[in-house]
Amino acid sequence: MNDSPITAAQVGEALDALRNEGPLVQCLTNIVVTNWTANVLLAAGAAPAMVDNEQEAGLFAGVASGVLVNLGTPQENTVAGMRAAVAGAKDASTPWVLDPVAAGGLPWRTEIARELVAAGAPTIIRGNASEIAGLAGGAGGRGVDSTDTPDAVREVAQDLARANSCVVAVSGAVDLLTDGRRTVRLANGHEWLTRVTGVGCSLGALMAGFAGVVDDPLVAAASATGLLTVAADQAAQGAQGPGTFAVALLDRLASLSADDLVEQVRLS
Amino acid sequence: MNDSPITAAQVGEALDALRNEGPLVQCLTNIVVTNWTANVLLAAGAAPAMVDNEQEAGLFAGVASGVLVNLGTPQENTVAGMRAAVAGAKDASTPWVLDPVAAGGLPWRTEIARELVAAGAPTIIRGNASEIAGLAGGAGGRGVDSTDTPDAVREVAQDLARANSCVVAVSGAVDLLTDGRRTVRLANGHEWLTRVTGVGCSLGALMAGFAGVVDDPLVAAASATGLLTVAADQAAQGAQGPGTFAVALLDRLASLSADDLVEQVRLS
Amino acid sequence: MNDSPITAAQVGEALDALRNEGPLVQCLTNIVVTNWTANVLLAAGAAPAMVDNEQEAGLFAGVASGVLVNLGTPQENTVAGMRAAVAGAKDASTPWVLDPVAAGGLPWRTEIARELVAAGAPTIIRGNASEIAGLAGGAGGRGVDSTDTPDAVREVAQDLARANSCVVAVSGAVDLLTDGRRTVRLANGHEWLTRVTGVGCSLGALMAGFAGVVDDPLVAAASATGLLTVAADQAAQGAQGPGTFAVALLDRLASLSADDLVEQVRLS
Repeated sequence: MNDSPITAAQVGEALDALRNEGPLVQCLTNIVVTNWTANVLLAAGAAPAMVDNEQEAGLFAGVASGVLVNLGTPQENTVAGMRAAVAGAKDASTPWVLDPVAAGGLPWRTEIARELVAAGAPTIIRGNASEIAGLAGGAGGRGVDSTDTPDAVREVAQDLARANSCVVAVSGAVDLLTDGRRTVRLANGHEWLTRVTGVGCSLGALMAGFAGVVDDPLVAAASATGLLTVAADQAAQGAQGPGTFAVALLDRLASLSADDLVEQVRLS
Repeated sequence: MNDSPITAAQVGEALDALRNEGPLVQCLTNIVVTNWTANVLLAAGAAPAMVDNEQEAGLFAGVASGVLVNLGTPQENTVAGMRAAVAGAKDASTPWVLDPVAAGGLPWRTEIARELVAAGAPTIIRGNASEIAGLAGGAGGRGVDSTDTPDAVREVAQDLARANSCVVAVSGAVDLLTDGRRTVRLANGHEWLTRVTGVGCSLGALMAGFAGVVDDPLVAAASATGLLTVAADQAAQGAQGPGTFAVALLDRLASLSADDLVEQVRLS
Repeated sequence: MNDSPITAAQVGEALDALRNEGPLVQCLTNIVVTNWTANVLLAAGAAPAMVDNEQEAGLFAGVASGVLVNLGTPQENTVAGMRAAVAGAKDASTPWVLDPVAAGGLPWRTEIARELVAAGAPTIIRGNASEIAGLAGGAGGRGVDSTDTPDAVREVAQDLARANSCVVAVSGAVDLLTDGRRTVRLANGHEWLTRVTGVGCSLGALMAGFAGVVDDPLVAAASATGLLTVAADQAAQGAQGPGTFAVALLDRLASLSADDLVEQVRLS
């Protein structure tokens, strides 16, 4: 693990910072995962606020610690809110995360995702392999399923990161995160993560929270990924299926110590 | 049980098909149950996608395995999405399920439900007795509560099925499903199903999933009903109330074997 | 406890009434908490219905037992629904509850909250200290967090109650409820209530349910608060974190007896 550009100690320190500072995370996200995302943020120690209307989103992005924009279920009014939030985040230098759900698979949202990237310089772009490829211009998969491993789009992700001076985080069995210069992989997590809706979406929200408390976006993205997947490893023990697993995951997000995270996170 | 037009073996085979094929189920559903519905589909082995905007819903209905349209919380923009999805499903011959929540009780949505039926020939219509009566023209109950047993609207359901060449599935303590020619009843399920929101809505989503993997819509509707209610029978064992019951239901949807389903489903 | 203007016996009788009558509670609430709120109402014994569109909200408010208007994630179309619901509730004398989420912190929704109060005479206004202060004209806190204890805004709450002939319920470690003449405090509840999203929002929905079955709005507000916080006290026993706590809370809302509520509620 010595070749990782991010150390486990940095991830542990980021978790301490998250819990000490309780960052306010504005989420403009899809209608499937609002409740789950808020509960993940609260369990981890952040404060969620789903201000997603056009009238308030820009103002709020100026006071939030971090902003998540997730394109899972866009509608014209919520897209207007996203545009306002991105503009507000840019003006206030608030870090923000883009989750381009199903980019590449559906033309309308793919264009919106690209427009937001061009307008606002995201801090982190998070998706599965097909979404990252789709955003970058390749063909997308069906819906939100990933059909490729993160490493299959490593170069695409690195190019996308360099082109936008941001971190690109690709989710999979082994997560791949890159800022175009440094690339880190995380190998925690459990198969049941794919049987609970919105886990990936909540990972984007956690990244926005961590980006509000640490300076290096790659550390922020890695810390969010490490927290969620190590908590998942723990939650899977004793769970009987996706229902009890999801409930235990919230418990573990709240109880996981920074020391245990440092010890269990598998960086490379 | 020998007089049932659907055999337990057919239900078991349908569950195997669902898990093997993992159908992509597009849900245009109400804001109360999106998360629950997605988790039910994932637990059972299907892949949810809540593409509900007017811009994308029609395109997506062309690639989805099945589509659910649920009228629980209609708004003008989501109704526009429903119209697009129904048109797309019709063009692509994608099976789709209509859940006319509170039909008969509220004039606006009742008209929308009838318009969608006329426009798109649903594969399955699913509701409680008052909703089926309301859609067909009778008086509806208050909100989403059923005030009649399914058998009280048996003839209405059979007429509705024949008039639209579809399956009509009426939920209750004993579920009644008919294609106008064949009628099947299922007697599984637990009282706590009425204490968890969205169980009926998620049943509609499961029907859309099964309709994507089996040819006979009556088998699809019966298999979805059997899976959910037998899993509920199991989940109720050891649960302490509606909270633990709902969590256990997700676990059981994932773990229930086809053999156990065949053995425990109560068809007549 | 003898100096409380509300007796524990009244709270217990209100719970019996809620379970016997099963009031229909119309919720126009935010997209984060719809599912949780419906499950809380069902567990407690009420019947939720989230009719929130402009076309139906007014009509439905005429038949509902109580109405909740929660400003957590307002959009133009849902605000139009709120206006219709408030007008319908006023016409039909249906009790309704306003939850002015983040009032004082965000100008647009603060104006909407004040407009609704002026238009419709709410039965109960429920919020944390900063929201009550913000609605009344003081400066609001960040997002939905409370930065003051309820007693810090006691006079503001009493003035607001008198000015609008309503009950004002301020949530905190010790809840403060007043109709401007009588003031009651409730000291139950657990710290984990702040780690589960939407608990406060669901409290507003419970108040709307109780207001539909008891005549005195202060008893209704106190009964909802007592039920939720005593159930929380019980749920915290044996829970491992916010995930298992939330699930147990639903179980306890269903199983808590009126006798146990009378015995355990801490009124003063």
